[in-house]
Amino acid sequence: MTDARLRRSIATVSLSGLLAAKLDTIAAAGFDGVEIFDNDLIASPLTPSEVAKRCADLGLRIELFQPVRDVEGVRPDDFPAVVRRVARKLDVAAALGAPVVLLCSNVQPDAVDDPDLSAAQLARLGDLAAERGLVLAFEALAWGRHVDRVGQAWDIVRHADHPAVTLAVDTFHLLSRGDDARALDGVPGDRIGFLQVADAPLLDMDVLEWSRHHRCFPGQGTMDVTGVVEAVLAAGYDGPLSLEVFSDVVRESPAAATARDGLRSLVHLEDDLARRDPAAVPVAPPAPARADAAFLELPADPTTDDLLDRLGFTLAGWHRHKPVARWRNGSAEVLVNAAATGPALGIVASPVAQVAERARALHWPSVDVTRTTGDTRLPGIVSPAGVPVFVSAAHDEADDWRRDFGPATDANDGWTGIDHVGVAVPGHTLNEEVAFLRTLLGLEPATLEEFIDPHGRVRSRAFRPASGDLRLVVNVPDVGARRAPSGVVQVAFRCTDLLAEIRRLRAVGVPLMPVTANYYADLDARFDLEPALLADLRAHDVLYDRSGDGELLHAYTPVLPQGFCVELLERRGGYDGYGAANTHVRLAAQAS
Amino acid sequence: MTDARLRRSIATVSLSGLLAAKLDTIAAAGFDGVEIFDNDLIASPLTPSEVAKRCADLGLRIELFQPVRDVEGVRPDDFPAVVRRVARKLDVAAALGAPVVLLCSNVQPDAVDDPDLSAAQLARLGDLAAERGLVLAFEALAWGRHVDRVGQAWDIVRHADHPAVTLAVDTFHLLSRGDDARALDGVPGDRIGFLQVADAPLLDMDVLEWSRHHRCFPGQGTMDVTGVVEAVLAAGYDGPLSLEVFSDVVRESPAAATARDGLRSLVHLEDDLARRDPAAVPVAPPAPARADAAFLELPADPTTDDLLDRLGFTLAGWHRHKPVARWRNGSAEVLVNAAATGPALGIVASPVAQVAERARALHWPSVDVTRTTGDTRLPGIVSPAGVPVFVSAAHDEADDWRRDFGPATDANDGWTGIDHVGVAVPGHTLNEEVAFLRTLLGLEPATLEEFIDPHGRVRSRAFRPASGDLRLVVNVPDVGARRAPSGVVQVAFRCTDLLAEIRRLRAVGVPLMPVTANYYADLDARFDLEPALLADLRAHDVLYDRSGDGELLHAYTPVLPQGFCVELLERRGGYDGYGAANTHVRLAAQAS
Repeated sequence: MTDARLRRSIATVSLSGLLAAKLDTIAAAGFDGVEIFDNDLIASPLTPSEVAKRCADLGLRIELFQPVRDVEGVRPDDFPAVVRRVARKLDVAAALGAPVVLLCSNVQPDAVDDPDLSAAQLARLGDLAAERGLVLAFEALAWGRHVDRVGQAWDIVRHADHPAVTLAVDTFHLLSRGDDARALDGVPGDRIGFLQVADAPLLDMDVLEWSRHHRCFPGQGTMDVTGVVEAVLAAGYDGPLSLEVFSDVVRESPAAATARDGLRSLVHLEDDLARRDPAAVPVAPPAPARADAAFLELPADPTTDDLLDRLGFTLAGWHRHKPVARWRNGSAEVLVNAAATGPALGIVASPVAQVAERARALHWPSVDVTRTTGDTRLPGIVSPAGVPVFVSAAHDEADDWRRDFGPATDANDGWTGIDHVGVAVPGHTLNEEVAFLRTLLGLEPATLEEFIDPHGRVRSRAFRPASGDLRLVVNVPDVGARRAPSGVVQVAFRCTDLLAEIRRLRAVGVPLMPVTANYYADLDARFDLEPALLADLRAHDVLYDRSGDGELLHAYTPVLPQGFCVELLERRGGYDGYGAANTHVRLAAQAS
Repeated sequence: MTDARLRRSIATVSLSGLLAAKLDTIAAAGFDGVEIFDNDLIASPLTPSEVAKRCADLGLRIELFQPVRDVEGVRPDDFPAVVRRVARKLDVAAALGAPVVLLCSNVQPDAVDDPDLSAAQLARLGDLAAERGLVLAFEALAWGRHVDRVGQAWDIVRHADHPAVTLAVDTFHLLSRGDDARALDGVPGDRIGFLQVADAPLLDMDVLEWSRHHRCFPGQGTMDVTGVVEAVLAAGYDGPLSLEVFSDVVRESPAAATARDGLRSLVHLEDDLARRDPAAVPVAPPAPARADAAFLELPADPTTDDLLDRLGFTLAGWHRHKPVARWRNGSAEVLVNAAATGPALGIVASPVAQVAERARALHWPSVDVTRTTGDTRLPGIVSPAGVPVFVSAAHDEADDWRRDFGPATDANDGWTGIDHVGVAVPGHTLNEEVAFLRTLLGLEPATLEEFIDPHGRVRSRAFRPASGDLRLVVNVPDVGARRAPSGVVQVAFRCTDLLAEIRRLRAVGVPLMPVTANYYADLDARFDLEPALLADLRAHDVLYDRSGDGELLHAYTPVLPQGFCVELLERRGGYDGYGAANTHVRLAAQAS
């Protein structure tokens, strides 16, 4: 890969709305080019040459016209009609000024399974293209009738042996059939006429439904998109990287948000590619090597001070110049900021300047990277779900957030830190939130879990770094017409003796979520607990889980006026989860 | 089947909400019994005996406690813990007064594939059940690790050879694995301990996801639920019919609506069963043998009279006593009713009294079945989507709606009738609307189609009777946060010379939906039309489709102040569809 950036393109079918508005949106998001989707053009009052002019005015290159379907493997009697149809579509492409036209493998029930026939037919169509100065790119649809793998499409292109007949590579089609980059071994880059990129979560379903409803931008799913793109580039392809994504989410989302998200995914893909190539210049500094939880910031409010006091936090100092109080309970830190409007999260991720620069380079919004006299640099970046994340350096480094607070009182021997923070996001921003956590901070998602909620369901995904103690749990509450919570919905602190802590909290009047007697009968049936422990758990409304030798004890407050519930937990042995088996009990208690 | 009705039951897991409220809702809907879902109980503050008392007070029988998981095919070392766990769960069932406890086949990765071991373990658990006067019912989960088909479960139950160990049959699990009623050949009815009924649409996806998200009530999907139930009853089973349904829709829907819909599905299932048994008394009169479109009713409004006039309708008479005008264009009939508040549909389905009685017996709401002096009987039934449907007898029968209107002027030689009516419903009422059209009127759904809309997508399903010209198209617009249309959104009339009609409509100022030039270029590419026809279509903004020898010409008004668009169409040859290939063009035009 050279320093020359690949052109960034997106298919108009990837966005909601009508063609003219889509073009404006795509240009505004910063793309270099666009694939024109035939149905978008058909439904548009703009003629092809008006579309071409509009794109030229917007500085957008029309990279591709797509798709033309069912053009090879056609019974010879039917082929003249195909030739006529393709000729008309090529005329449209020529009027658009689209240099490449995408042909998809035949999906018709009467398609003929004969690669030689397909090759001969593509060669004939190649003549039509060449006459107009165009190139055809042939794609194996994953649900093609006979041609559904990229290797088959390449064999046909090779046998067509026509300069205007090339291979189209689409990462979704290739990867969804179980192939990987090796399927492109031996394909010369100059025979690859187009590269479409899309990712998807791993789903065991009909591939057409999977493609229609669940594609997402590179880095948001589980496919090795980068590996395929790397292979295509290594072969010498120098055309655009073009996004073609469909899903229920993007269909219903505002086009501008989708376009912004798509562009960001390409920038990250370029960064990912550059990191694999020692000769390349990365787009952004690398993601931080580790990430730890630092503090929770809350808006100032008398009930918050009272809550913190009862929870066992003590006032440990004030910010040097700002109305921000530092509260501590052992290693658990909470800032109360008179200027804050909602909860925020502080994390440790060094070097701070590098994280801020990475956010900027990857197009994540940076809300505050200023340094005022005497203040440490504490860049604030708002996650797509709206949660501000402040990035601090580690203890005693120059940009350690504690430096703003002067000497603190000694840590008492209380809680051992922030265990995890739960954030609720609407379903349509899940992919963006996932991309934020993965690309900026290098966090990795665990499996998607799903819980029954009395009014719907909650999809949940936990994120952790390769190194460091930061844990974030992203929830999507699907609750129909009801108003779903959003933002920080749960703050979990860690301690070493949960039962003692709960006793103390109860003594000072902290409200705790009641747990049913039936829950303890079930616990007993499942785990055969020591009667004394079972009695203790029951007496204190403490939930319990076990996995291998590890145990989890945890308890919750109800949802507080601050908008979230506080969880306190004790991990014993190697327990590494979040008490998923108890989630339905918590959701029911919070709904009642 | 005897006249004694089977008990009607539903699993609490099938409803949203919390246990106590679910029980109230289930009783209010008219069920005889209930399955208690363990997680509902665990999350409930009511003890098992309090639940038993509440059910007794509500007149609800607790039919089943469910599920107890991973209890057979367990490594012998682990079995003592299973025995302990099952014993505790049986104690809960006994406290509930649930006579039967559902055990599911083992899904754990370490499950042992040894039917003899499973049988021996079930026999041991049978002893525990017998001691408590309970019966176990063993179910093959469709995603069981080794036991995933009903035949395997039956082999294990047979080999367990224990009076307290019986087979559970769940229509979803049985049918989703590709089995049918024959899988139960030779299973004696008294060895079937429980029968759960659920339907589902045919989907090619992981069976666990399919089960979790897409189950529906019997008659709403595509499975032969009745066939399996018939076999179970023929074998001599006399326990309850119990609904166990999960889906994203029911999870988010109000419990009362779900319970009402579920009960209705059981009543229809009983009716369906009785029709297969010459000795049985059906629950309801049969569905009408044929169904035809009769008229469209619109609220009175000066703009409506003007619209009808321009469309070519003429005033053909007045209702004898009511402020209802009859407008006609050939055989297309429209009533304008000063008392109506929205569009309604009149259909011909004889005998009228029988349809009204069927609606009542199947629990569909009947809004108007009165007969006033001199009026024909015209029962009005509101569809779940809120569209009133008036049922008339055929021409010259006693309950022919025309009798209310006195002698009409001669029909001019205009349009040939109402072709179809499009109704938009919110996604969560789709199953109910489908059940209404299928069970009450005997309409059959075509394949589900899906169209891209500029702001989302539209799922669409056409319904027709076995005999008669009635055509209804049910649409679900999924448009994110936007306000989706609902009720009657499209009224299509049929004519014999569309181009002439459009010329006439245009001359009198009827607004027509403009069609793009690009559409005609695409038509030409696809169909190689006669240049004169193509020019005519283009000149008149007429859409075109072809299928085999059949052709469709159709045109639309924009969405009118009445809330719907009018389509006018001409079917040539055997064209039997709705111009699906043009839907994206219409949706784009209507969105712009």
